[in-house]
Amino acid sequence: MKDVKIENMDWVSYKEITESGDCKIILPVGAIEQHGPHMSLNPDVLIPSYISEQVAKKGNKMLVAPAISYGYKSQVKSGGGNFFPGTTCVSGSSLEQYVYDVLLAYVNHGNREFILVNGHFENSVYLCEAADKLVNHCELRGMKVKVYLLSYWDFISDDTISKVFPDGFTGWAIEHGGVLETSIMLKIHPELVDMTKAVDVEPATFPPYDVFPSDPSWIAPSGTLSSPVKATAEKGKLILDECIEGIVKHLN
Amino acid sequence: MKDVKIENMDWVSYKEITESGDCKIILPVGAIEQHGPHMSLNPDVLIPSYISEQVAKKGNKMLVAPAISYGYKSQVKSGGGNFFPGTTCVSGSSLEQYVYDVLLAYVNHGNREFILVNGHFENSVYLCEAADKLVNHCELRGMKVKVYLLSYWDFISDDTISKVFPDGFTGWAIEHGGVLETSIMLKIHPELVDMTKAVDVEPATFPPYDVFPSDPSWIAPSGTLSSPVKATAEKGKLILDECIEGIVKHLN
Amino acid sequence: MKDVKIENMDWVSYKEITESGDCKIILPVGAIEQHGPHMSLNPDVLIPSYISEQVAKKGNKMLVAPAISYGYKSQVKSGGGNFFPGTTCVSGSSLEQYVYDVLLAYVNHGNREFILVNGHFENSVYLCEAADKLVNHCELRGMKVKVYLLSYWDFISDDTISKVFPDGFTGWAIEHGGVLETSIMLKIHPELVDMTKAVDVEPATFPPYDVFPSDPSWIAPSGTLSSPVKATAEKGKLILDECIEGIVKHLN
Amino acid sequence: MKDVKIENMDWVSYKEITESGDCKIILPVGAIEQHGPHMSLNPDVLIPSYISEQVAKKGNKMLVAPAISYGYKSQVKSGGGNFFPGTTCVSGSSLEQYVYDVLLAYVNHGNREFILVNGHFENSVYLCEAADKLVNHCELRGMKVKVYLLSYWDFISDDTISKVFPDGFTGWAIEHGGVLETSIMLKIHPELVDMTKAVDVEPATFPPYDVFPSDPSWIAPSGTLSSPVKATAEKGKLILDECIEGIVKHLN
Amino acid sequence: MKDVKIENMDWVSYKEITESGDCKIILPVGAIEQHGPHMSLNPDVLIPSYISEQVAKKGNKMLVAPAISYGYKSQVKSGGGNFFPGTTCVSGSSLEQYVYDVLLAYVNHGNREFILVNGHFENSVYLCEAADKLVNHCELRGMKVKVYLLSYWDFISDDTISKVFPDGFTGWAIEHGGVLETSIMLKIHPELVDMTKAVDVEPATFPPYDVFPSDPSWIAPSGTLSSPVKATAEKGKLILDECIEGIVKHLN
Amino acid sequence: MKDVKIENMDWVSYKEITESGDCKIILPVGAIEQHGPHMSLNPDVLIPSYISEQVAKKGNKMLVAPAISYGYKSQVKSGGGNFFPGTTCVSGSSLEQYVYDVLLAYVNHGNREFILVNGHFENSVYLCEAADKLVNHCELRGMKVKVYLLSYWDFISDDTISKVFPDGFTGWAIEHGGVLETSIMLKIHPELVDMTKAVDVEPATFPPYDVFPSDPSWIAPSGTLSSPVKATAEKGKLILDECIEGIVKHLN
Repeated sequence: MKDVKIENMDWVSYKEITESGDCKIILPVGAIEQHGPHMSLNPDVLIPSYISEQVAKKGNKMLVAPAISYGYKSQVKSGGGNFFPGTTCVSGSSLEQYVYDVLLAYVNHGNREFILVNGHFENSVYLCEAADKLVNHCELRGMKVKVYLLSYWDFISDDTISKVFPDGFTGWAIEHGGVLETSIMLKIHPELVDMTKAVDVEPATFPPYDVFPSDPSWIAPSGTLSSPVKATAEKGKLILDECIEGIVKHLN
Repeated sequence: MKDVKIENMDWVSYKEITESGDCKIILPVGAIEQHGPHMSLNPDVLIPSYISEQVAKKGNKMLVAPAISYGYKSQVKSGGGNFFPGTTCVSGSSLEQYVYDVLLAYVNHGNREFILVNGHFENSVYLCEAADKLVNHCELRGMKVKVYLLSYWDFISDDTISKVFPDGFTGWAIEHGGVLETSIMLKIHPELVDMTKAVDVEPATFPPYDVFPSDPSWIAPSGTLSSPVKATAEKGKLILDECIEGIVKHLN
Repeated sequence: MKDVKIENMDWVSYKEITESGDCKIILPVGAIEQHGPHMSLNPDVLIPSYISEQVAKKGNKMLVAPAISYGYKSQVKSGGGNFFPGTTCVSGSSLEQYVYDVLLAYVNHGNREFILVNGHFENSVYLCEAADKLVNHCELRGMKVKVYLLSYWDFISDDTISKVFPDGFTGWAIEHGGVLETSIMLKIHPELVDMTKAVDVEPATFPPYDVFPSDPSWIAPSGTLSSPVKATAEKGKLILDECIEGIVKHLN
Repeated sequence: MKDVKIENMDWVSYKEITESGDCKIILPVGAIEQHGPHMSLNPDVLIPSYISEQVAKKGNKMLVAPAISYGYKSQVKSGGGNFFPGTTCVSGSSLEQYVYDVLLAYVNHGNREFILVNGHFENSVYLCEAADKLVNHCELRGMKVKVYLLSYWDFISDDTISKVFPDGFTGWAIEHGGVLETSIMLKIHPELVDMTKAVDVEPATFPPYDVFPSDPSWIAPSGTLSSPVKATAEKGKLILDECIEGIVKHLN
Repeated sequence: MKDVKIENMDWVSYKEITESGDCKIILPVGAIEQHGPHMSLNPDVLIPSYISEQVAKKGNKMLVAPAISYGYKSQVKSGGGNFFPGTTCVSGSSLEQYVYDVLLAYVNHGNREFILVNGHFENSVYLCEAADKLVNHCELRGMKVKVYLLSYWDFISDDTISKVFPDGFTGWAIEHGGVLETSIMLKIHPELVDMTKAVDVEPATFPPYDVFPSDPSWIAPSGTLSSPVKATAEKGKLILDECIEGIVKHLN
Repeated sequence: MKDVKIENMDWVSYKEITESGDCKIILPVGAIEQHGPHMSLNPDVLIPSYISEQVAKKGNKMLVAPAISYGYKSQVKSGGGNFFPGTTCVSGSSLEQYVYDVLLAYVNHGNREFILVNGHFENSVYLCEAADKLVNHCELRGMKVKVYLLSYWDFISDDTISKVFPDGFTGWAIEHGGVLETSIMLKIHPELVDMTKAVDVEPATFPPYDVFPSDPSWIAPSGTLSSPVKATAEKGKLILDECIEGIVKHLN
């Protein structure tokens, strides 16, 4: 099967594919963040990377750029908070600048369309800002650049949700380290999941505000916002198939 | 009734209230953003300002700081997008720096607790970043500072929602310029709402991704994401009462 | 009388007025700063806001943007210094960036002429820098933008000064919280002035240099640089009339 | 006579003088800016450098650091404007950062007192900001740092002014390239002044506002704001003697 | 053999290893940059990553952090220049900020020693700056942090060089994409090298200055600065063994 | 002989020379840095300044801009490190911004070609970045700007080296404060060298990595990386003649 990862190409091959200017560059953006004691620190990198590659393989003239591994600070209500050992995050301005510069470099190669595949909720606004600044800068230079920004979970249907959560869905907001992410990891990187360590936590509930510095007592000691114990590789496949198909359908 | 607005005090009176260091400073943060042809550009400033004042009046040793009027860029799916005439937004780094500096100035007066009352969804992450940096900086200086960050709508209960939307709620995401904000404005600033200009749009639906530059065709020509026609001052009062009471209960 | 405040318009009305591109946008920029025990913290915001509105009402196609409330750090010799409780200031770069972004947003609506009405001496250079960067950026985009920058007190004539200070004028430099500002506030916001608290200080004198950190002993304990006791609303009217008329004459 | 210029010392000698921590470091800050057809581009550097050296020679434990040559943008009403060939200016943030870093480096050598001798009016606020940030940063590190900031002309008395301008003084604001600066240069660098090229312009008058982009027609074609023709080296000596003596008296 | 990659650990395991505070965190920093038509774009990432893992496996309490893939701009004389398709570089300030933030996050987990393993010459100074700022910031917080910075090629001895280049060494400066890097890649990632595409270029010679914009004619069309044709996996093993052993010896 | 220093010209003369747009502006960039107990702190400023003037005098339409005195942080292996008293350095971003702004100002006068003559090794990358950003910014404005960047020592031939070091050359890397720089200073500024204080140190040797914070024990107490005792003015002349001639030949 064709290799879609830019980093594995030599520059002449890359040039031949991209010089027509109609190639879409997919950039996975993730985070290094705790996802409970049962899972590695990199699901937010590995999942969008996997999806990006599958999309590129099914899509038409799409290439995958090396992923951005370190993302914006984990927030308590979406990622458990920025105080867990292993959660390794950068400031918003650093992320924004770094992503902006990377996209601009690909623009300078002649590329004009980009798909940012986000795997870490907290990154979203900074990716918006990077994309917005890129588009404005390129317009100044007389270039029409288009950036699509997506979070893979937005392509999951209610139907799939009801299959993945037959006992009821406790909501997107607290899926951090729960059934969804764990199932996907079980499918694509089972060696990085140890279900014997999965902790069966109650779904997290939070007060209707945030507080800084964060209050660690808001979070279960295991770090997940809901229980991963019902995760399976089959559920992971179901989710991935729908996301990949959906992204290809919308953005090819 | 007591005046809680810092800007209206002379400095000696302000000093007397705050020098014990146990006063809570409330900072409303909003945006200048279109909210449909039936409403002024400033609901995102006026609503959190009003709520802040009411909370301060009911609360214990709370003061309201002058509001930050210009907020982060309106996004298509939450505010209609940053291309409408009248939508007047700043970059994320400008907002973050400005808010950070303002909070730091209040810290330098001896204050240690802050409540950011947000009226514009898109501001949220930049307010997190400003709060996080402030807390870290103050820790370096040996000061324990606490920042609460809230968006007033997070204090609205399902019960109130069912009363405000007896025909069914189409979701928070598309409430921009709809029944919620319009009702509140009818209650607190009826002179800035003209219901004869309200456009009865269908609830907005969006593809599961964003695109830059934004595509204006995703948005109804009127600019609201749902219809404001069923807004009433009574509904506004219901919402406000619950928000104000909830904030006081949680943060007093 | 016509409403000239942008924030109170709906976006369609705003668009109709501005889309021809020949509207002048007036942006008041002030500060939250102590002005003695007899006056609120916001004269530097309220005075330029009032003047802006009057100018816009008399002028031709002029609108007033929401004011920037927090300004650059109060300096000892012009504002008493940045150490009084209540004096709430931001860094120069934050002010510059924030004002730049706000002006750019109005440019993006199609506006090309701006009048910055400054109410706080210390803001001046940062407003210059914001204006200069805006003009250069817009030139890059092929837009001719013009920014007028004024401090209202520069429109006061020697004749008015001799009427306002029949016993002799002690100089512009030490007018902070003195007869000039107090008189204007007595005219436009008497509810925010309490002349019974006015302290009759000697005109401030300073060494011919500045020092950092500031030395509070250089300033009278009341915070004003000259005495406000001879302020009257009549003097305020005299000053305002001349400033408003002068600005309209020069910039309409 | 003793050499007070840091750059001319070897590091061991510099260390011996400064290691007690009670040395005052004088930093001249100027600009490269047109001063009329009769004078070189560097009076704003050479004058504060000369004064700094004389002050250091008369003072107690004072050293002169290498001058900062490029200053903030020339403004029309004080320096003729930033559009003359030869006027070579940097942005405010660049100046502020550069000066801040230089001062911090001297702090790291153990120095705690600084005198900024400014030769270019437009630099003032950015020097304030650099000094303020330095003081705050050092306080965080437990160091008490003191920065004096002065512009040499603030040490000139009315008495001297009446001797230098026997026919009447047209005001500080328009002294750019006029009798004051030219006289000083005739005294300290006669080789850089050619009085045969001096243009006898009328004192500049300006409208009570600024405009961006600047309007070159506001300025005499020669670039000075008042006439230099009555400048003499004797007047220069008079001014310098008073400035040097005054600075020594106040800051030794 | 033990897994030393932080990203593959769950947070509890990571915490157990690092909480004593005596663990060394190794951060590989590379670049996405053309290395000739015979090799992929990622040797500058893969080589330091491989070395880092081997060092960590032989060392005592060392862990490898996820690599930074995108590095500072390729310069003509060391990397062929920033204009080849596929060479995808960020600005210096972005790299510096991003690396700084990543290191700071690891400090916040309790780590105090870091080894930056650089694979791209141009990164060096920005890594110095990030390290210097980190050390200073941590000192402010009362933490003693130590950062080692190395480029793997500095551990290669003259003896190895003479074995790798039996016909004579043309110098470090032009090893970009030549025998050294190609040999290492043949050893660790033979699937990313295709020696049939290797171009036998003459060693590059350059004028004794740089020019901006870069002049592509200074570089061989293939992009390498010397010929890779004599590269072998055996040479790669020789080099790697010495680098890994050397780093372990010096920094364990 | 003609004066080539811009700062000594009046603006009209400068305009006449530069308005054709084909003048080359030479900007010397140095550092204030210890160079042993036998030499002043400014060789890195004085040497490139001298060379720049000589090049300009021999060249065709070349002018010399006022030098940038303060450079990037001294590194242990090239300049002894940033901890010696007298070594007075700025951060990389400050240097980059300041140089960028200075070059841009000269561009705004109509100049299009620049030669940066660097006298301090550590400055190099930040000068690259400033030049690269300048070129890109000017391209946006439709201007073709060219920046040459050179370090004078790159123009010294092996032949000269063998004459200057008849007993063998210990390498460029450790020439800081050694025979090369001392010889040049003996030629151009003998009053700033005192050979009786020269310390005869062994050539420095370093481990193959850097460490932060720097370890002062890596450096000889005198601060030079090799011995200056065999320096002579004659050797200085030999070196300068070759550098000046070489630069003229390549860049005239």
